[in-house]
Amino acid sequence: MDPGRVTLARPLTLDDDRILPTEPHVRSVAREIYAAVRDLPIISMHGHVDAGILARDEAFPDPAQLLVVPDHYVTRMLVSQGARLEDLGVLRTDGGPVETDGRAIWRRFCAGWHLHRGTPSRLWLEQELHDVFGVRVEPSAGTADEIYDVIADCLARPEFRPRALFDRFGIEVLATTDSPLDDLADHRAIAASEWRGRVVPTFRPDALVHVDRPSWRTDVERLAEVSGVGTTTYEGFLGALRQRRDHFVACGALSTDHGHATADSRPLEAGEAEAIYASALAGSVTPQQARAFAAHMLFEMARMSTEDGLVMQIHPGVARDYDPGVHELFGADKGFDIPTPVDFVRGLRPLLQAFGRHPRFRCVLFTIDETTYSRELAPLAGVFPSVRLGVPWWFLDSPYAMRRFREATVETAGLYNGAGFVDDTRAFASIPARHDVARRVDSGFLADLVGRGQLRLDEALETAVDLTVTLPRLAYQRQG
Amino acid sequence: MDPGRVTLARPLTLDDDRILPTEPHVRSVAREIYAAVRDLPIISMHGHVDAGILARDEAFPDPAQLLVVPDHYVTRMLVSQGARLEDLGVLRTDGGPVETDGRAIWRRFCAGWHLHRGTPSRLWLEQELHDVFGVRVEPSAGTADEIYDVIADCLARPEFRPRALFDRFGIEVLATTDSPLDDLADHRAIAASEWRGRVVPTFRPDALVHVDRPSWRTDVERLAEVSGVGTTTYEGFLGALRQRRDHFVACGALSTDHGHATADSRPLEAGEAEAIYASALAGSVTPQQARAFAAHMLFEMARMSTEDGLVMQIHPGVARDYDPGVHELFGADKGFDIPTPVDFVRGLRPLLQAFGRHPRFRCVLFTIDETTYSRELAPLAGVFPSVRLGVPWWFLDSPYAMRRFREATVETAGLYNGAGFVDDTRAFASIPARHDVARRVDSGFLADLVGRGQLRLDEALETAVDLTVTLPRLAYQRQG
Amino acid sequence: MDPGRVTLARPLTLDDDRILPTEPHVRSVAREIYAAVRDLPIISMHGHVDAGILARDEAFPDPAQLLVVPDHYVTRMLVSQGARLEDLGVLRTDGGPVETDGRAIWRRFCAGWHLHRGTPSRLWLEQELHDVFGVRVEPSAGTADEIYDVIADCLARPEFRPRALFDRFGIEVLATTDSPLDDLADHRAIAASEWRGRVVPTFRPDALVHVDRPSWRTDVERLAEVSGVGTTTYEGFLGALRQRRDHFVACGALSTDHGHATADSRPLEAGEAEAIYASALAGSVTPQQARAFAAHMLFEMARMSTEDGLVMQIHPGVARDYDPGVHELFGADKGFDIPTPVDFVRGLRPLLQAFGRHPRFRCVLFTIDETTYSRELAPLAGVFPSVRLGVPWWFLDSPYAMRRFREATVETAGLYNGAGFVDDTRAFASIPARHDVARRVDSGFLADLVGRGQLRLDEALETAVDLTVTLPRLAYQRQG
Repeated sequence: MDPGRVTLARPLTLDDDRILPTEPHVRSVAREIYAAVRDLPIISMHGHVDAGILARDEAFPDPAQLLVVPDHYVTRMLVSQGARLEDLGVLRTDGGPVETDGRAIWRRFCAGWHLHRGTPSRLWLEQELHDVFGVRVEPSAGTADEIYDVIADCLARPEFRPRALFDRFGIEVLATTDSPLDDLADHRAIAASEWRGRVVPTFRPDALVHVDRPSWRTDVERLAEVSGVGTTTYEGFLGALRQRRDHFVACGALSTDHGHATADSRPLEAGEAEAIYASALAGSVTPQQARAFAAHMLFEMARMSTEDGLVMQIHPGVARDYDPGVHELFGADKGFDIPTPVDFVRGLRPLLQAFGRHPRFRCVLFTIDETTYSRELAPLAGVFPSVRLGVPWWFLDSPYAMRRFREATVETAGLYNGAGFVDDTRAFASIPARHDVARRVDSGFLADLVGRGQLRLDEALETAVDLTVTLPRLAYQRQG
Repeated sequence: MDPGRVTLARPLTLDDDRILPTEPHVRSVAREIYAAVRDLPIISMHGHVDAGILARDEAFPDPAQLLVVPDHYVTRMLVSQGARLEDLGVLRTDGGPVETDGRAIWRRFCAGWHLHRGTPSRLWLEQELHDVFGVRVEPSAGTADEIYDVIADCLARPEFRPRALFDRFGIEVLATTDSPLDDLADHRAIAASEWRGRVVPTFRPDALVHVDRPSWRTDVERLAEVSGVGTTTYEGFLGALRQRRDHFVACGALSTDHGHATADSRPLEAGEAEAIYASALAGSVTPQQARAFAAHMLFEMARMSTEDGLVMQIHPGVARDYDPGVHELFGADKGFDIPTPVDFVRGLRPLLQAFGRHPRFRCVLFTIDETTYSRELAPLAGVFPSVRLGVPWWFLDSPYAMRRFREATVETAGLYNGAGFVDDTRAFASIPARHDVARRVDSGFLADLVGRGQLRLDEALETAVDLTVTLPRLAYQRQG
Repeated sequence: MDPGRVTLARPLTLDDDRILPTEPHVRSVAREIYAAVRDLPIISMHGHVDAGILARDEAFPDPAQLLVVPDHYVTRMLVSQGARLEDLGVLRTDGGPVETDGRAIWRRFCAGWHLHRGTPSRLWLEQELHDVFGVRVEPSAGTADEIYDVIADCLARPEFRPRALFDRFGIEVLATTDSPLDDLADHRAIAASEWRGRVVPTFRPDALVHVDRPSWRTDVERLAEVSGVGTTTYEGFLGALRQRRDHFVACGALSTDHGHATADSRPLEAGEAEAIYASALAGSVTPQQARAFAAHMLFEMARMSTEDGLVMQIHPGVARDYDPGVHELFGADKGFDIPTPVDFVRGLRPLLQAFGRHPRFRCVLFTIDETTYSRELAPLAGVFPSVRLGVPWWFLDSPYAMRRFREATVETAGLYNGAGFVDDTRAFASIPARHDVARRVDSGFLADLVGRGQLRLDEALETAVDLTVTLPRLAYQRQG
């Protein structure tokens, strides 16, 4: 904190046992479990990497553009201590001036390194710097330039191109998140290339089912264009969505993804949905109608999943763009999205009553409202054959939070009603570190059960492998 | 998970230190505390064992009917992974075909043994199999028949009859849960027998205070018959309930039990209750009226407790029969009951304002909404002389959850405002294992306080005994 | 529990390592961290000590009046087990008879010593008795008189006068909590004295912004008198509040403090606030209007903070005076205040949208609803430059609760968006013990991070000092 403190260059090292429990016997058990999963392939079923990166396979730009500017975990922490988004290179929607010098951004990031103490960003960045780029000195004001040069040098080399990293990371499959309006040209280009990496799209229709978003009418017109199905009627709209789902399936999609303000899934009567849709097209929809339509569409998307077998991922409960000033000047996803309480039990009841025991339905539930873990999510996953628990995600993708998730859900839902770890990241280079943290947390959790005589070591080893690869492979199979 | 895995028969062993903390010094303290409570009598004040089992004292049926079919903790976990309730022997309300071969059911249960890893069912079943039935091999597809035969052989022997097990288990008193319509013949038969086991009824009027239940009008007629008090008026209804409470007291009852959707306890004005009652009798009650009447009756039941001294147990916050399809085909209590958020503070305010400091009132509060532990329940129990904390219950009757309960409540409510452990079980043979798990968790919790220098060992030993026997004996005394 | 138990006098000792983690290596790290902060000055920015005590500097009255009667943590626990507030010396508002014999009260307190096992009261009282008064025997029925005499003897000596203790405790600054109606004569007397202790007021306008409180109209008249600004109009009311804030600033105030039932901060339209104010003056305000006005005033207080730079402390979510019978007979703050759920995200949105990124605004958020830690508070503090996290407070000022706070917030908000520990106490002699407990908990938390290889020891040492003194000094600077 004190700018006068002498900050010598400190070595950057990684503790082999990091995140594992501290009691020596339990730690030795955890090490053994972790060794069994450490090098298993990465199954990344829920993320935000741009497929274009892998389609083009061009060198990444400078270190700041790779590691700082697009990572809202990092920029928000600096903002919380008074930094301006402009000075971190975040583009303004009005085209106003922002920092363009990668090195200047990087220096600001390094000077604030201590702000990430105790956070998962620290763990991910440290491991990325050390393992991916070979950095051996801790970021600080005094070491910023040296580290910048090391990374920039790496990025210029072919073995740091996206596809090379993908292979080096041991990624078995990478799912991206895509608009129904996307023609998936990048995914098709990758599939058509000689590179063997598997990159699949995920169908995320949020923009189209929230009829009060400013861009909705334009989006629905675009939907008609890309699908070839007219969207001037509600029936046409549903048909166009079905066409896009089919296209996604043809391009390898395994799942859909749904971010809603609430978990409400109450279907509308036949005429109601049509009426709201018509009003929305006419530009005169109320917030209440928009909410009702979104809930209805969650139900309809579930119904379509029973038809095409796409696994349905649901993550409700975020107040997006909480600060309209930031949203207006910098756009979405800048760290100003704040979680809200969720009621899965009442919200999902219509959906689960209709499809919860359907043989071709599978849904994965995510939350950042931890109060639902033991009260709602574990009891639901512990009885409905279609429901799988999504792991802690976003703000909760961190050691203590993942541990709380296991402790709060396993006793009710067991260890076999989960869907494996998801990294949910835009930061391609952080994928291995994120999965590694999760594997370490799970190894520690299982080791504690062994240490307390609640599980045998052979069971723990088997379960660890299941959590890491078996369950995500099973959970994200197309159903049917 | 992989059906191709070789599953050799693994020995079934119990770790003497299971569930105790892992740090060696703390563990040795925990062992010492546990040794002081391990063999104390079992006080089981809140459960669902059928008194008829002990009245008749006949041999239990086959292993599947004893351990699988009636245990919704077990069947729901198998259902969550795709099993059909029919194939687990759960009877259909329409009399449709279900599995009747106990051995076939048992095989399905054993093949899914891994699903219970990390759950309390695993702990309870393991200890039952090992300690009660002498099983020494782990359940699996390959060992199912062998284990079935061991248990079936036991069940045929006199020392495995219900009363013999009751005595062997060291049960000081067992409270059942009973409808006001029950004549308590089984309890009276037990009391009149030469067997010395103490089995007391608990007055649970839920069906009678929820006027919108389909069976309500029939039940109210039956109430008039069994009580000899006419129920065609609201005053008669109250009088009939009082008569039943008196009958329960005469048969040894110490407490009442109330499962409501919410904690609301707002009393109605004089005329309102009468009017709703009359409407309900006429078959035209609204959901809102039914809710208001249920809240009112919670208040009235508290008032009656100040008259007859019965301890009042309250556990709100469950969406019963969440899946109507399951409810229609299989009836209640099949694992499809899901917790909901509870507001004890606002809900119980009328009741506590009226009776919270009444010298003859005692209530024990249970929840499966953990968010209320530190925010609501501990502050209430830490000041109202009538309020005692019920332990984690149902989905939360498990090591991590019990530990969270202690950590979240003791700092505010202390260790002496609890009511001891309750097992809440239908599974008679699991009672010792359930109490044993709780004793281990409490021993570990107290040992941690000792290990961190916050409590002396002699205090911890004294407190452990108090938690195990002194507090439940005190909490469930009739008041006044 | 058993009155027949032989209770020999047990020695009162303090474990040097109390509250620190139990694993030996982690404990040794924790010891090293704790040694670095143990003797740092106490910065007490949020408390309820009466400045008059330090202005007059008279000897404290007897032990019961110092340690039992005013401490609602202690009296509520005794009440929860059946004690009467009258018998603990708590004054009745109707002047009815209460115990006046300090020794009799003290005996009741000592006989109930076991009730505090596992609570923070136990930790604080134990350390006070041992370190401040040199007591070396544990409180019990048998030792009550002996301990009473030891403390009474101390209190008669000059080195136990308030200012001497203040200096001995190493208090750098003590903030009191004061009504805008207070002329702050005590604070001015202290400042004018030759004693160098720093005691600053805190502006707490709750009584004036809740227009439905019975005393409101009298208070507003008094406001006009002390401020010299007429309060017959809403504009005058605001002006009078500004005058009082200026007076507080002139007397050294650094912050304001706001206890509201909810976090609602929605501002009213120009005319609305005036209309409600006028209605309130006329004595005809609805509860809904009163709530709307309180929310509006939270917004207005934030606006004034951007003008005068006072740090704004907000702690919503308590049902005050939950039992009206107790409130009528004994007044406020008698242990019958119960927390309620809080929605910071929706509630504070208007305030944060308007001022959350204002360069001269700083707010510190407190809660006793732990569900908001990871869901709301950490995400807000992790991005808004004005927001700092207040530590666990009141019922949550305890080892497990503080640990949960760190585990639930640090991963999202980091370690540098906090405001340091606050003791929130009326019990002057407990201040060092309360800060000591917090320093031990933080040392243990940081040591665990070190033990798990997530933080280096030198970082932990630096951070521990920052948490203890740097952050509270920074957080409570006047802004601008």
